[in-house]
Amino acid sequence: MATPTQVPGWIAVDWGTSNLRVWALDDRANILAETQSPLGMNAIAGDEKLSFEGVLISLIDAWLPSDARGVPVVICGMAGARQGWLEAPYCDVPARPSDLAQGAVQPNVRDPRILVSILPGLCQRDDADVMRGEETQLVGFMDAHPGFAGWVCLPGTHSKWARVSNGEISGFRTYMSGEVFALLSQNSILRHSVKEGWDDGAFADAVRAAKVQPASFLHSLFTVRARALVARDGAAVAPGGAVLSGTVIGAEIADVLGLLQPGEEIALIGAGKLASLYQAALGVHGHKATPMDGTAITLAGLTQAYHTLKTASERI
Amino acid sequence: MATPTQVPGWIAVDWGTSNLRVWALDDRANILAETQSPLGMNAIAGDEKLSFEGVLISLIDAWLPSDARGVPVVICGMAGARQGWLEAPYCDVPARPSDLAQGAVQPNVRDPRILVSILPGLCQRDDADVMRGEETQLVGFMDAHPGFAGWVCLPGTHSKWARVSNGEISGFRTYMSGEVFALLSQNSILRHSVKEGWDDGAFADAVRAAKVQPASFLHSLFTVRARALVARDGAAVAPGGAVLSGTVIGAEIADVLGLLQPGEEIALIGAGKLASLYQAALGVHGHKATPMDGTAITLAGLTQAYHTLKTASERI
Repeated sequence: MATPTQVPGWIAVDWGTSNLRVWALDDRANILAETQSPLGMNAIAGDEKLSFEGVLISLIDAWLPSDARGVPVVICGMAGARQGWLEAPYCDVPARPSDLAQGAVQPNVRDPRILVSILPGLCQRDDADVMRGEETQLVGFMDAHPGFAGWVCLPGTHSKWARVSNGEISGFRTYMSGEVFALLSQNSILRHSVKEGWDDGAFADAVRAAKVQPASFLHSLFTVRARALVARDGAAVAPGGAVLSGTVIGAEIADVLGLLQPGEEIALIGAGKLASLYQAALGVHGHKATPMDGTAITLAGLTQAYHTLKTASERI
Repeated sequence: MATPTQVPGWIAVDWGTSNLRVWALDDRANILAETQSPLGMNAIAGDEKLSFEGVLISLIDAWLPSDARGVPVVICGMAGARQGWLEAPYCDVPARPSDLAQGAVQPNVRDPRILVSILPGLCQRDDADVMRGEETQLVGFMDAHPGFAGWVCLPGTHSKWARVSNGEISGFRTYMSGEVFALLSQNSILRHSVKEGWDDGAFADAVRAAKVQPASFLHSLFTVRARALVARDGAAVAPGGAVLSGTVIGAEIADVLGLLQPGEEIALIGAGKLASLYQAALGVHGHKATPMDGTAITLAGLTQAYHTLKTASERI
């Protein structure tokens, strides 16, 4: 952990289920120091010796002189869940970035050096859905792309697709694709079929098939296994992992493409292998979406919230 | 295990992955005795001290006098798999019951009292799919309903839907619904949402929704969890288990109904809670299908195969 050479203007925290990231920043959002920890919400909820404030202070103590007072700490993510530090009730869609910042809650803290604000998640009442953390990435994205109108994809264990236009998040959809893929490839009969190899063409074929037969998901899964059993001796069989991955990601994308209105764009936030697969799958259907780094976007969203909170407090 | 009062005319065996059922019958298919065992294919493949012939003889030994010779034993199911007793290569669709009987293989046996025939499963090359065991139920069903034209549903861990008409199985589709439901309700984040209660209306609503949004399966799953998180304080939330069950079975049925041609019927083979759920889900969409007992139908299919094999051997 680097010690900042100056007292931070504020501190940004992305507190997830299984880890957290913390940044010390100046008022122009220059990063003075950063650190991370595996003590996400689940670890704290599962250990009565841990508290959210205690974990946070242990990470930022060296950044704060003893005479510092009320340094703003802006937190997004699971710290605001019911099982978190202090519940920040969900903000309903449609929502603007300012609605989210205004929904922040301030837990009581013992350490006078900090003033903590926890941002709310988003919820959707009809077509029930929730997010905590991704909304801050959406805010960061919207800040950098004010004219964007379309769907923003955040791939993950539970992928999120949010509809954004006119500076507003109008709705969103969570897909259990990542978790379903993990369960099928590790715990189902398909685990025998996904062991070896990868083939981009087989992935693309499965993505294409998922759009042609969007209702056939539960059947398409079984063909991942059956195609090896029916192959004639010596015939090449497409790698099951690529087919399964294309079937699952393809089903998710086929559903979203069915909701895409003329003129709407698609943006992709994420990094690494998973984001590349989404990029490839979108490319199969002729949609170009270059993955944008999620960490920078989270920090941009927290910065946006910090400025809104600061402006509001200065008005009081 | 009951000992038959007369020497069986033949013996029928349904040898599954995790158990087997055996019947002693006379030539008119009257049941003289029956028994079952947990020594399915997996148990035998996993224990080098066990053999298929040894397990079979231990079950039927008392039914056969020492001077019996060549009593026909007709077996369907996993005994014919590659990892089984002797591989009975899949029969391609379209297939008639006689094609299946003619595809039977005869393993060498040490015990002179028996003559064993193992029936093949079915495979479909385009839209890759396979079955082993269910094809014999289809044969039994077709024997009792020679004029049937439509889809026969066999619910299970991997549900099978077969298209039957003019005494022929023209194609079929496996759905991983049972396994996917088990994984989601036991191992996914949804396990927290499916603990208590049941509601027929919530099940029916989910079945209906699955047909309205057939491509939204991976999203609909998450709403099972989200609907509890977005509910206003004190508002009733539909039991998650019923919603999840309706979402999964509904997705399967929505896909099949999309393939149903005008005039085609639906038949349902099975018993117990699962078959009742399929019956209810079909009822939501106005299709009446009364579950038929699968065991009796399996035995009818084995009987049909026995007669075909007997006629063929008498011709030689």
